[in-house]
Amino acid sequence: MTGVRRYFEDFHVGESFTTPEIEVTTDEIVDFATRFDPQFFHTDPESAHASVFGEHVASGWHTAALTMRLWHDHGPPVQGGLIGLGVEDLRWGPLRGGDRIHVVGEVIETRPSSSGAPRGVVRLRLRTLSHRDVEVQHMVAAILVPARGH
Amino acid sequence: MTGVRRYFEDFHVGESFTTPEIEVTTDEIVDFATRFDPQFFHTDPESAHASVFGEHVASGWHTAALTMRLWHDHGPPVQGGLIGLGVEDLRWGPLRGGDRIHVVGEVIETRPSSSGAPRGVVRLRLRTLSHRDVEVQHMVAAILVPARGH
Repeated sequence: MTGVRRYFEDFHVGESFTTPEIEVTTDEIVDFATRFDPQFFHTDPESAHASVFGEHVASGWHTAALTMRLWHDHGPPVQGGLIGLGVEDLRWGPLRGGDRIHVVGEVIETRPSSSGAPRGVVRLRLRTLSHRDVEVQHMVAAILVPARGH
Repeated sequence: MTGVRRYFEDFHVGESFTTPEIEVTTDEIVDFATRFDPQFFHTDPESAHASVFGEHVASGWHTAALTMRLWHDHGPPVQGGLIGLGVEDLRWGPLRGGDRIHVVGEVIETRPSSSGAPRGVVRLRLRTLSHRDVEVQHMVAAILVPARGH
């Protein structure tokens, strides 16, 4: 599910893609959390063991940002770019420093514009999985995709 | 809706909070996007004008991360921290460099654990608004909150 930039007509329910893996480091987890989500279970690998997680874990928003990067780099290129309309059912599992993660995406719906405009909505389920076989993120994302010839 | 760290029993439907404003710079938008969402309408303020947005805008995941920071710093402190169970209905509007944003949160549901465990789920609607009165993000987030005495 890669190659030339796709139009709405080029997406089909059931298609899927799998990205390569990237490794996530403890330093990256601490850096992101320090900037955006400075809770001790994200910023302090030592004291995190006393948290409800029992270990040092990434902010879910960091996992989301890393997922976006993998999707951008390795998902199907879309004409005009990945224009996100919204996300449903975003959930997280524990992402640790040293984990290697990849994303598995699947097209679950294609819906032409109800107004008849030359575009449509593509809904994808994106699962982010670690090498420990933990689902560190699940979401359903809707993107706006132009129709061919527009 | 600030003050001492809250337990599940301390949350009530209809309560709300409003954070102070922060300003978001074009440089920050470019930096985040370069790392996590390197699409030209996020990374290049010049060429972004030719995009579907017609202007340079932040990655939605940047808006989400900034929203988390405002919520963390200025929302009601929660015993054990903000433990996100998941997010529904995450949507974005255009966030530009120079925008000042704040978050308005409202408790929309409190639900004791169905298993009888000493905790509950609090659902909040979090709207992120710019000084131009644009809703740059909307989401419903569920957090896990311990019950008093635990």
